Amino acid sequence: MLPSIQWIKSYSREDFSGDLIAGIITAILLVPQGMAFGILAGLPAQTGLYASILPPIVYAIFGTSRTLAVGPVSVAAIMVAQTLASLPETVHPLNAALTMAVLSGGALLIFGCFRFGKVANFMSHSVLSGFTNAAAILIILSQLPNLIGFSKPQHISWQSVTQEIELGFQLNSGITLLIGLLSVVFLVFCTHSLINLLSKLHVPRSTATLISRAAPLGIVCLSAVSVSSFNLESVKVVGSIPAGLPQFELSIPSIEILKLLLIPSILIALIGYVESISIAKTLANRHRQKIDTNQELIALGVANLSAGISGGMPVAGGFSRTMVNYAAGAKTQLAAIITAILVGAVALFFTPLLQHIPKAALAAIIIVAVTKLIDIKGAWKIWRYDRIDGLVLLTTTAAVLFLGIEAGLAIGVGFSLTSLSIRAAKPHVAVMGRVPRTEHFRNILRHDVETWPHLLFIRVDENLTFANVAFLETLTADYLVTNNEVKHIIFVLSSVNIIDSSALEVLERMIETTKELDVTIHLSDVKGPVMDKLKTSHLIELLRPGGVYLSANEAAETLK
Amino acid sequence: MLPSIQWIKSYSREDFSGDLIAGIITAILLVPQGMAFGILAGLPAQTGLYASILPPIVYAIFGTSRTLAVGPVSVAAIMVAQTLASLPETVHPLNAALTMAVLSGGALLIFGCFRFGKVANFMSHSVLSGFTNAAAILIILSQLPNLIGFSKPQHISWQSVTQEIELGFQLNSGITLLIGLLSVVFLVFCTHSLINLLSKLHVPRSTATLISRAAPLGIVCLSAVSVSSFNLESVKVVGSIPAGLPQFELSIPSIEILKLLLIPSILIALIGYVESISIAKTLANRHRQKIDTNQELIALGVANLSAGISGGMPVAGGFSRTMVNYAAGAKTQLAAIITAILVGAVALFFTPLLQHIPKAALAAIIIVAVTKLIDIKGAWKIWRYDRIDGLVLLTTTAAVLFLGIEAGLAIGVGFSLTSLSIRAAKPHVAVMGRVPRTEHFRNILRHDVETWPHLLFIRVDENLTFANVAFLETLTADYLVTNNEVKHIIFVLSSVNIIDSSALEVLERMIETTKELDVTIHLSDVKGPVMDKLKTSHLIELLRPGGVYLSANEAAETLK
Repeated sequence: MLPSIQWIKSYSREDFSGDLIAGIITAILLVPQGMAFGILAGLPAQTGLYASILPPIVYAIFGTSRTLAVGPVSVAAIMVAQTLASLPETVHPLNAALTMAVLSGGALLIFGCFRFGKVANFMSHSVLSGFTNAAAILIILSQLPNLIGFSKPQHISWQSVTQEIELGFQLNSGITLLIGLLSVVFLVFCTHSLINLLSKLHVPRSTATLISRAAPLGIVCLSAVSVSSFNLESVKVVGSIPAGLPQFELSIPSIEILKLLLIPSILIALIGYVESISIAKTLANRHRQKIDTNQELIALGVANLSAGISGGMPVAGGFSRTMVNYAAGAKTQLAAIITAILVGAVALFFTPLLQHIPKAALAAIIIVAVTKLIDIKGAWKIWRYDRIDGLVLLTTTAAVLFLGIEAGLAIGVGFSLTSLSIRAAKPHVAVMGRVPRTEHFRNILRHDVETWPHLLFIRVDENLTFANVAFLETLTADYLVTNNEVKHIIFVLSSVNIIDSSALEVLERMIETTKELDVTIHLSDVKGPVMDKLKTSHLIELLRPGGVYLSANEAAETLK
Repeated sequence: MLPSIQWIKSYSREDFSGDLIAGIITAILLVPQGMAFGILAGLPAQTGLYASILPPIVYAIFGTSRTLAVGPVSVAAIMVAQTLASLPETVHPLNAALTMAVLSGGALLIFGCFRFGKVANFMSHSVLSGFTNAAAILIILSQLPNLIGFSKPQHISWQSVTQEIELGFQLNSGITLLIGLLSVVFLVFCTHSLINLLSKLHVPRSTATLISRAAPLGIVCLSAVSVSSFNLESVKVVGSIPAGLPQFELSIPSIEILKLLLIPSILIALIGYVESISIAKTLANRHRQKIDTNQELIALGVANLSAGISGGMPVAGGFSRTMVNYAAGAKTQLAAIITAILVGAVALFFTPLLQHIPKAALAAIIIVAVTKLIDIKGAWKIWRYDRIDGLVLLTTTAAVLFLGIEAGLAIGVGFSLTSLSIRAAKPHVAVMGRVPRTEHFRNILRHDVETWPHLLFIRVDENLTFANVAFLETLTADYLVTNNEVKHIIFVLSSVNIIDSSALEVLERMIETTKELDVTIHLSDVKGPVMDKLKTSHLIELLRPGGVYLSANEAAETLK
């Protein structure tokens, strides 16, 4: 239950130096990012900070990944924002967001208790890519009004956002636009060119990287100082943040509101879980460390619960923050604890400094961060490699953009589940004959084999399910139409691990109908578990006079 | 395009005697059943008759099955009834029903043009069984009010039906109840005991069967004569039916109404198609005849279009009617044409006789007919054979009963698609070694094989997709955690026909992360089509210094 004991036991001095530096660097990144994600979610900026204190500490205790950085993430933030925008006006947004964190946590915990770690398997790579692209676009659209000066996007949808952009240009105060655009330019410069420039000036690479990572903090400080020094009142700022740590409280909304929040919360939980698992696995595999998917459900569940009761928005493992943490040398979750303590100190002592931060600067930080999430190259790679997956990706992106996150995800997951059925619909099936002077049976199309006109050996190279049994039935029936001599059909089931009940039904039907043509069906090479299940049905009795043979050769020797 | 030409060319005198008798017997069954299905759909009784005239003739021309009896069916009728009940009151029910027939026909034709015959594969046997059970229960509930005397069920739903049953008992005229119950008793007697009784009286079996099949017609005649002779005005009857054949006309409803009708119509089309295909295949296989699934889409599509423009409800191939037709000796679709002509004659000349038929008698016919559709034994068989399929069946039944037909079907199909992913989630994976003094590699758990500590051979016995690649990744990673000596992993892909893009992504990730552990990944036994696709990706380059080997043995010889 407490995987952290493992790394605590073997903790060393070298681990600490890595953890300390990584903890500090991640904190420098996290303070502005956390506030930005709070605003992205349509909440007070501090909601993002609070989500960066208790949840990572809780994850450090319960989680199995040593370097996953848990906290507010952009995709969860936009999902919260969309949900809040759809609620009736009487609901307090902050209260709803905290409830969503609790519901997400509860859902993950329940999944964890039932050991549903495999739930991540339902989300294919193409659905996730398609979803991430669409979410990034929605995030950018939602932040454009903040960036260019119009401060109150009411709904987040394609139409209303474009309307608001127009309005924004009309109402726009030039100075906000200036801050926003300068911030974007500065951040892009720091991400792409600063490290190379500093290297040319003989600054050590590690220092250069640190300076580059501090760019968001720099932007936030610079713009806040400018706004307060020059008294720029037309610029929208974060505003006053209550000093001190949040109080542990959560008022429970009505059942009707809970119903509205439940599905989005579960989706946030699942998307966050799938993303977290994927990052955690990648990093763990590099160090022969294990990730326990069920324990991760519990760890992320408790982290979300703690977010909800400590005034934070829903949390997950963030990809870019984890990579920064890892690259900065984090060895264990102590790095995350150090980050959390530093962020906590900021929330405790430095809130007066935060209130002058312009929303435009935070919007710039978000936009620069999520632009990296839009992965056109990856989408093109998927499309080129596999048309079905490409279509799943495109459909998911389009559906999320135009029909909303929930409907879009449902369509994407539905389509990718359907793709399994499409792929299975035409199984590889071989008509076989015997390699002369051996006991081996091979495809008659590829090998020179002996056959017998009254025997038909059919090998099916895939599990028999509702998705493909019709194919087998048609293939066999068509063969019988053109081959009157066949008296025995032997299905060689050496590659079949599952026969579902639809396939069983069709097999029984085939056995009965071929009997009327004086053709007998036999089975061979039936695997143990498949045979066990068949014995619970009437199929074996129905087969008679057909039988079950250990091998195709045994069937041939008996029937030829 | 005209499969009928085949049987017309080879038509013989013996075919005709079979077809004539089958045509007559089916017509005797169809006249009362057609009217009953019309009433079941919430439409005038003649709508069911009209659907029995032109559509079977059209199917006879375009269809590939020689014995499928196309016409009104109970499941389509209840689906029409549910849709009509949900429409705004301003919409004329008959007009909406004809539009649904046209939309169903159009949908099938479009599917046929795109050669989507495989669409039937999405509907698993368990979903269909679960759906049929629920539909039968809904049908019985909807007809109970007619049977016991209360004549106007406004909605068809669990709650309103039970309310109406109570009302019915209050308002119930004793004579209606009597007619209804007597009809049920008589029909049950004719179905279950009459043939045996007549056989004991030395009546030839064929005559006995004919008499038993005529039971519904007998009920209809007897009750109609009673009502008109004794002037029983309190009994609700079919009422006046316009004489003559229906006029070819169809008024097109507004776009909004069309939108409401579209999804239900497509569902009716698909359910009807899947049922028809299943019956058609079973009978065709008995005579080495072929069913072309795409041509069936077109034939049923045109049949539904013809139903819509000739005043009939949506049609499909009916299971029980087809079995009666087949058992009575039908050899070709001429039997269906004879049936259609006879029903047409009734609709043309005998309508005055039909108007006195009590609705209670028709309700009795429906209830006795659909009770056979409730297949508890089949459900139990599925549950015993396979728990997942059993759950799919139960979920579909419950969802259709309590959430309605559309939502229920969507949930059922979604669940059964998910079941493919659940089944695929834990593929059969074997760690392999070489059988001494051979080139064969076998599972180390089952055979006495030689292994090398620095080589790990893993054979995956299933296609690699998003549903199961995580399993392979975890298995490999866990193996590496406990086995430090391994330097080369060889994935033996002899059973892999597909690697989807999620699996590709994970394989690439595994190659990269294991490189950092100084472990190299190789592939062997890659099938041609899989290799072709891999070549369009970067995987082969990423593998280096790992390679692709023709066989596990080649890999072992090179790497050992």
